[in-house]
Amino acid sequence: MSLNYVGIKRVLLGHPFPTRQEIHERLDKVRGLAIFASDPISSNAYATEAIMSVLILLGSGALALTMPIALAIMGLVLLVVFSYIQTILHYPDGGGAYTVAKDNLGVMPSLFAASALLIDYILTVSVSVSAGIRAITSAFPAAFEYRVEMALLAIVLLTWINLRGVRESGTIFALPTYAFVVGVLVTVAWGLVRYFGLFGAELLLPAVHDVIPERPITNFLYVWLVLRAFAAGCTALTGIEAISNGVQAFKPPESKNAAKTMVAMGVIAMSLFGGITFMATHLNLLPSEEESILSQMAREVNGTGFLYYWVQFFTMMILILAANTGYQDFPRLSSFLAKDRFMPRWMMNRGDRLVYNGGIIALAFIASIIVIAFQADEITMLPLYALGVMLSFTLSQSGMVRLMGKIGKLQPGETAHTGVTTIHYERTWRWKQLLNGTGAVVTTVVLVILIVTKFGEGAWLVVLAIPLLVYLLRAIHRHYEHVANALSMRELQLEDMREIADVIIIPIGDVHRGTLRALKYAKRMTDNVRAVFIITSEASQERVQRRWQRFPEITGGVQLICLEYEYRDILTPLVEYIEKVNREEYPGQIVTVVIPEFVPESFAAHLLHNQTANLLRARLRGHEDVVVVDVPYHI
Amino acid sequence: MSLNYVGIKRVLLGHPFPTRQEIHERLDKVRGLAIFASDPISSNAYATEAIMSVLILLGSGALALTMPIALAIMGLVLLVVFSYIQTILHYPDGGGAYTVAKDNLGVMPSLFAASALLIDYILTVSVSVSAGIRAITSAFPAAFEYRVEMALLAIVLLTWINLRGVRESGTIFALPTYAFVVGVLVTVAWGLVRYFGLFGAELLLPAVHDVIPERPITNFLYVWLVLRAFAAGCTALTGIEAISNGVQAFKPPESKNAAKTMVAMGVIAMSLFGGITFMATHLNLLPSEEESILSQMAREVNGTGFLYYWVQFFTMMILILAANTGYQDFPRLSSFLAKDRFMPRWMMNRGDRLVYNGGIIALAFIASIIVIAFQADEITMLPLYALGVMLSFTLSQSGMVRLMGKIGKLQPGETAHTGVTTIHYERTWRWKQLLNGTGAVVTTVVLVILIVTKFGEGAWLVVLAIPLLVYLLRAIHRHYEHVANALSMRELQLEDMREIADVIIIPIGDVHRGTLRALKYAKRMTDNVRAVFIITSEASQERVQRRWQRFPEITGGVQLICLEYEYRDILTPLVEYIEKVNREEYPGQIVTVVIPEFVPESFAAHLLHNQTANLLRARLRGHEDVVVVDVPYHI
Repeated sequence: MSLNYVGIKRVLLGHPFPTRQEIHERLDKVRGLAIFASDPISSNAYATEAIMSVLILLGSGALALTMPIALAIMGLVLLVVFSYIQTILHYPDGGGAYTVAKDNLGVMPSLFAASALLIDYILTVSVSVSAGIRAITSAFPAAFEYRVEMALLAIVLLTWINLRGVRESGTIFALPTYAFVVGVLVTVAWGLVRYFGLFGAELLLPAVHDVIPERPITNFLYVWLVLRAFAAGCTALTGIEAISNGVQAFKPPESKNAAKTMVAMGVIAMSLFGGITFMATHLNLLPSEEESILSQMAREVNGTGFLYYWVQFFTMMILILAANTGYQDFPRLSSFLAKDRFMPRWMMNRGDRLVYNGGIIALAFIASIIVIAFQADEITMLPLYALGVMLSFTLSQSGMVRLMGKIGKLQPGETAHTGVTTIHYERTWRWKQLLNGTGAVVTTVVLVILIVTKFGEGAWLVVLAIPLLVYLLRAIHRHYEHVANALSMRELQLEDMREIADVIIIPIGDVHRGTLRALKYAKRMTDNVRAVFIITSEASQERVQRRWQRFPEITGGVQLICLEYEYRDILTPLVEYIEKVNREEYPGQIVTVVIPEFVPESFAAHLLHNQTANLLRARLRGHEDVVVVDVPYHI
Repeated sequence: MSLNYVGIKRVLLGHPFPTRQEIHERLDKVRGLAIFASDPISSNAYATEAIMSVLILLGSGALALTMPIALAIMGLVLLVVFSYIQTILHYPDGGGAYTVAKDNLGVMPSLFAASALLIDYILTVSVSVSAGIRAITSAFPAAFEYRVEMALLAIVLLTWINLRGVRESGTIFALPTYAFVVGVLVTVAWGLVRYFGLFGAELLLPAVHDVIPERPITNFLYVWLVLRAFAAGCTALTGIEAISNGVQAFKPPESKNAAKTMVAMGVIAMSLFGGITFMATHLNLLPSEEESILSQMAREVNGTGFLYYWVQFFTMMILILAANTGYQDFPRLSSFLAKDRFMPRWMMNRGDRLVYNGGIIALAFIASIIVIAFQADEITMLPLYALGVMLSFTLSQSGMVRLMGKIGKLQPGETAHTGVTTIHYERTWRWKQLLNGTGAVVTTVVLVILIVTKFGEGAWLVVLAIPLLVYLLRAIHRHYEHVANALSMRELQLEDMREIADVIIIPIGDVHRGTLRALKYAKRMTDNVRAVFIITSEASQERVQRRWQRFPEITGGVQLICLEYEYRDILTPLVEYIEKVNREEYPGQIVTVVIPEFVPESFAAHLLHNQTANLLRARLRGHEDVVVVDVPYHI
């Protein structure tokens, strides 16, 4: 069985990597961008449309507000990118908002940041996969019935790719990510060329269709809808923090490479967002149920040709692959939490391919549950999304304000250690603090807008879930503290340690080769061996007593104790006898029980045998002062 | 956890019975009839109708054949009842067809008889429960959608009642069984009184509606349909053999009580069958989709009054309770087979309430699968039914013919032992042999008719399943033989037994109270203790080496072996080290591994810890020459 298991694992995951190979598994900037930026880049496929879909409720005239709102969001992106570049440079070991908050704001804020991000990463997977599947079912409506199954299959595939290792998945994800970026940029560029009539190219603008709002617009409604449009556009910010968690996934110099990738990501995301928004508004496009803004734009600019299909196909691909950001960050953040004992310890173990298997599988499992619960409908999941990320931005930037304060207290040339990282004097600390402070204030305001505008649509779930998760993390931490205290040798007195009783109890159901083997073993340990037999029938008692005489070389000197019991359950009298010996003859000492265990050749054969040995072992586990010795006998 | 489990069991099943109480749990004749006869008695609810439904295809004139066919079946019942009374008297330990065939015909015929019966008992449960649920859904068509769930629920209830003990279930089943018998007998008696105009009562016969066959009737079709009508009526025979298996469930004198109950059952079943058939044919009733023959008869005889509803209600009840015959016989027959090592040994263990828990649960499980597979539609299951019973009749009667032959060879006053039972000289052996021989021939003919007429409708499944089950029983037997040989001490030479190596290997992941406890235990066993630590990081190695110095009283004299391994899997190098020690230093000897195991306080807490100890134990199970010692440490 063991061999088979190893064989299957080999085929699925490839040969295991030795630990020293870790450095070879690191990402270069090209793969790093593909693997960490698929989420923020993919959001451009729908961020502009999300804004316009809300504004259109105010009438087509209000669409003129799209560009200003987009600019505000781009400003926010700039602030956040700047802040995270600082984080990357100051925390080269990674950990993002969680580490920054822990180092500067304390445990509780760091747990809030971590919980918010964990929930967002899970949602990233559920939402992205569901959105990708929707792209497929739009093309093949017959597949709609199977959307949940298809989404789960996509999660299984993503899980598998990620379990094969970060470098390999980086390679797989690189092509669709860059193909999408190039496709959209070419479309935008060609659109601009034609729009401004450069090189003699011209673009016939479609006629403007005026849309008039169904209800009269009050001032309050106006402000509310503009805020909602802004909140909707904020999905463009999700995933920006990904690189800050994963600094250690980059080739050395880690933080420099990560920071450069961050800049590249910011530039690409902003160009796409700005470009798409500019074209969408200047081409007089209207959001519609039937066709996405991105699709309309590509069609207007260059017709339904090769470029159009290129953009459409890779949009679908990148929507699914955006889930990968979750696969990168959830396991990594979990491993940071596990290292600090806020998550199960197996979350920090790296598997055969040097990735955090436990976290990857836990993520796949929870995301699958959400996909099933929401029936793979990403529209109903979206209001839950982006909230967690915004909270983590706020906490991260607040933390950076504090860190800059600490740096400001240093003299030129001085260094200090904060507990997590080493800081040096920086001339520009005041400016950086100001920018981070502005970022913190702005993201707080945005967070409030998000909560208020999305609360009724489902955001309340996340508002509830974050503190619950914080509570769970703290409970896990308390458990580990408790265990560590209980195991600690600090106050251990040698006299406190249990003595070992000079007795061995060996339950037998019959006398055969397996029993003799166990008896021989027990006699090596002590002279005081007691074989205990529970009488199930007179015939069985006679048989045991007769066979007991057969090998006096082994059974000699061993006490054979036959116990009557008026029920058929043989375990209870055995356990009671062991407890009695422990309590009355050897109080406070460790009693040894030797179990002759018969190991059948196959799994099916197990079904044909009473599980007495296993059940007895399970019942004795509850007794601290009983040591169980398994003497196996193979057929 | 153990306490909770016991508590729940107590509430569900009641307090456990001591083994000596077995005799008090035995059945008197009244309960015995109720518990074993519910199946054969319940078949009267539909046997007459089954015959008429086939004959009507030949036109209403052919219904005159109903009574002759019923008489033929009653003759068959008489033969079989007579044969089984002989079986009960000659095999007072029970076992029915299986035991008779084993004792007189050999192993293979006995396994065929057992397999045929086991399959029929399972079908009894599936068919009866489904038929009962159909009675309910006929009254409440809205419930039709949930018929499978309701049938499964009924199986759960029956399982629960049967797990509570045979006497208690006998009491529960007595009322509906007798109420049904009394209701039908009163109806038939009152019908006869009115039909023959006794005591001045009169009965207006309904007008005869002539039914003309749709197709011309060829000679072949005529014979075929009469045979099919006969085969359909043979369902009246199912369950007749039940008492012969369960002789030991009766109060002493067991076989006398069982034989008397058998006679009572035969008389009741024949009166019901004869009475219903007589009334149905003489009242000119026609089988119809809308109303059962039994219902029509009750209505004609006494109108839609109290008696009518009585008969209808208890018909439904007894249809469901007929399943109970399966619950009585399957576990009992399985226990006979388990005693002879043809079934898993746990099938012969009696539970807290002195019933065969394993068999009851196995039966419930398989019957549920069939209910799900056939969507609780007993009509499609019926062709599978009665085949097995007829095969077992044939084998049982053939066996009795042989037994009577053995008895015939005895001198007056002489006794002999057949291997299973003791036989005495009997003056009438020749007559009994003749009757059993006739029975064997007739049931063989009926078996062939059943197979031929029902083969295409599903009987082929049973024809296939019986030999497959025989194969499985033999495979189980071979496995047990193999194990018994391997464990046997017959050819054991003391020199063959493995020596025990003077070495203990103790894997450690850290040095703490739990490790120290295990080390202390290991040092008690030998001076050659080796603590093995797999280096996962430099920091961990330093920590272990530092802590190792802390308690020289315990760690002194123990070799600390730190092994480097280039992958993260720590189990593989541990197992490899243990194998190397066994192979190179102590070849052919038993090596001991002491595992310090940390036992968390709750089940949830288990999730927070690496399952290293459990996984290591599982991997070492495959090594015959490794003894594992668990030293628990509770928090």
